[in-house]
Amino acid sequence: MNVQTKPAEDAVAIVAELGRRAKGAAVALRTAGTDAKNRALSEAARLIRHQKAAILAANAKDIAAAQAAGMTAALQDRLLLTDSRVDAMARGLDDIVALPDPVGAKIEEWTRPNGLVISRVRVPIGVIGVIYEARPNVTADAGALCIKSGNVVVLRGGSDSFHSSRAIVELLRRALATSGLPEDCVQLVPTTDRAAVGEMLRAMDWLDLIVPRGGRSLIDRVTEESRVPVLRHYDGICHVYVDRDADVAMARDLVANAKMRRVSVCGAAETLLIDRAALDTHLMPVLARLHELGCEVRGDGEVQKRDAKALAATEKDWRMEYLAPVISVATVDGVDGAIRHIATYGSQHTETIVTNNAATAERFLGEVDSAIVMHNASTQFADGAEFGLGAEIGISTNRMHARGPVGLVELTTYKNIVRGKGTLRP
Amino acid sequence: MNVQTKPAEDAVAIVAELGRRAKGAAVALRTAGTDAKNRALSEAARLIRHQKAAILAANAKDIAAAQAAGMTAALQDRLLLTDSRVDAMARGLDDIVALPDPVGAKIEEWTRPNGLVISRVRVPIGVIGVIYEARPNVTADAGALCIKSGNVVVLRGGSDSFHSSRAIVELLRRALATSGLPEDCVQLVPTTDRAAVGEMLRAMDWLDLIVPRGGRSLIDRVTEESRVPVLRHYDGICHVYVDRDADVAMARDLVANAKMRRVSVCGAAETLLIDRAALDTHLMPVLARLHELGCEVRGDGEVQKRDAKALAATEKDWRMEYLAPVISVATVDGVDGAIRHIATYGSQHTETIVTNNAATAERFLGEVDSAIVMHNASTQFADGAEFGLGAEIGISTNRMHARGPVGLVELTTYKNIVRGKGTLRP
Repeated sequence: MNVQTKPAEDAVAIVAELGRRAKGAAVALRTAGTDAKNRALSEAARLIRHQKAAILAANAKDIAAAQAAGMTAALQDRLLLTDSRVDAMARGLDDIVALPDPVGAKIEEWTRPNGLVISRVRVPIGVIGVIYEARPNVTADAGALCIKSGNVVVLRGGSDSFHSSRAIVELLRRALATSGLPEDCVQLVPTTDRAAVGEMLRAMDWLDLIVPRGGRSLIDRVTEESRVPVLRHYDGICHVYVDRDADVAMARDLVANAKMRRVSVCGAAETLLIDRAALDTHLMPVLARLHELGCEVRGDGEVQKRDAKALAATEKDWRMEYLAPVISVATVDGVDGAIRHIATYGSQHTETIVTNNAATAERFLGEVDSAIVMHNASTQFADGAEFGLGAEIGISTNRMHARGPVGLVELTTYKNIVRGKGTLRP
Repeated sequence: MNVQTKPAEDAVAIVAELGRRAKGAAVALRTAGTDAKNRALSEAARLIRHQKAAILAANAKDIAAAQAAGMTAALQDRLLLTDSRVDAMARGLDDIVALPDPVGAKIEEWTRPNGLVISRVRVPIGVIGVIYEARPNVTADAGALCIKSGNVVVLRGGSDSFHSSRAIVELLRRALATSGLPEDCVQLVPTTDRAAVGEMLRAMDWLDLIVPRGGRSLIDRVTEESRVPVLRHYDGICHVYVDRDADVAMARDLVANAKMRRVSVCGAAETLLIDRAALDTHLMPVLARLHELGCEVRGDGEVQKRDAKALAATEKDWRMEYLAPVISVATVDGVDGAIRHIATYGSQHTETIVTNNAATAERFLGEVDSAIVMHNASTQFADGAEFGLGAEIGISTNRMHARGPVGLVELTTYKNIVRGKGTLRP
């Protein structure tokens, strides 16, 4: 089925066929029991462990092509599958088996004066398109999350990971078939032609949601072109605000964790906001720890006055998602100033306040309009597993449907069920 | 502020200015207390009653223009405001005052093993654009629903109702100002230039949601052009399935109510599905009542064989939203056939089954994938007030965010609040 080399004009036909198959599979998956879905996922985990050699061989082809094309070492590492990474992928599927099935759960139920009983019950969204870049483990993760939540998925991996993704998808499909579910519950777009993405973005007649996972240019293209609803993850320009009423040691440790635990995750802090009233008490202990950890500091005038190592921050720095050991530091006038700075420069992802003043904390939590707002907690907790959702398909910076970590529950919608006794509307 | 006559090239500047003002108002409204919002709505109701003459005078201008342009009597009636219609508009605002404020409600809360307390709390969506056609009462309804749910709203009424809408918006803005809220919480697009709609549909930087209310061509344009998320109401091709185990009298009364109570509402039944096993027992009592009520019947061969008055239905009839005293009638093979027919021809709005067989009912409720599914209840209950939501801004046939009636709660989203004790991620 290597149709990678088919000409561009076939993208229309290829995507139409994906749609036909996806719609065909959707009814069975939507109404499938938890047992059947879990059997398929457990079998997929077993096959992935059992067929590890085949997956690694497919991955070796991708790596060879990447090397030939001069891919950077960092990107090659993202693409590389190893024995332990394949094991982790299989464990990820087992973890999803263990999670509760959201489908069929009653969200609420009420009775009307005329006797009608109305309930809202979770149902799958339908058919989801996941468009992602190099990392091949997304293939298994996204596939499994969609299966468990009753959603048919069409995966469009990066061209760099095409062979790896195809090997993994084939195992998922085999597992579905042996569990009595349609193998078309999971499909991989069988071409790396970019025109196929364009077709998916216009496939309103069969695609209910697009989840792009990747860099800014992918997200921008999807946002610009898509007629299908998009669950999006834009920048994570996360802020830590250190208030005058913060404990100094807590501020020092929390900023260090938020910035430096892992600098490449979307929940990593990018800007430190320091209360003007805390400049002489809190700033230097916090910055000293960051310098110890090898973090570059770019500060405003107040910060540079106090920290000889600080570089000058420019307006551009307040809008930067460094994803690197660099932090921008701005002086603000108390919690109001912090709220204003975040409203101006933030990306509505995750922000935290460090303070022992409960009233100040509540103002921050109430007024900062981000997907995740925290008090005395590290921004690095912005993660589905850390939230207790189990696996996540990503973090949503949308305002509609789901905000923050998107797990199984967030991959469902609801229907309204109305039960009467021959009830007529007057 | 009559800028109706400004040239098209000003649409960009006009919409940018609307955006600037909307963003400015959003922070205050988002964090406004219930009391302030209710005061504004009560004052708006009072002003609408008190300034009835001014509203009717503005409406008279719209009606005169409509008559001069040769508008049909039906559309003129939709546009016309009368003493009692203005009173109803004011009562509508009072009703919204009485509804609970959804903002700030805790949806759920849980504690993680590390002590983090995570809660999901309802917050306004932000800035909502409502694009609607002739009916001027939408101006007050949509404006009030948005205010109460903490959302800034930009209203784009039909050009036919421009003067009426402007008169109503001016009273809403005056009421906001006297209640200490920014008057820009409600704005009317001050031009009837269609280019302004195009600008709104691209206003991703300040508009969080577009709600189109109107005919198919409006919805289609918005769907095609919008980069902003859309809460959409497509067709209501609603089905009643009469099962072999239905009570004959219940089927007769329920079909009559679903079809004929009001034929012009989106929840009106358009297609009757009759179980092949009920053809000889249930069909004629049901059709006889429909004929008595003046309903035209378009049936398949089995129906025509039994009902001499039935016209022949064509394939096109299964996809028709008549919104008229006409019903299509198809014979299906039991509940499975009904489910298949609805999957093929339905619009995922509202469908009902009439049966006394609980197992059959559960299959229908489980497998029919519509926003609203009913058992022994009239499809005409597809309505926010009938659901007990109070007022509604419309019915959503989206799959994401909200399905079915969209009231105050559905006009909110949530934020994730995380409370720690200096908690660091390991």
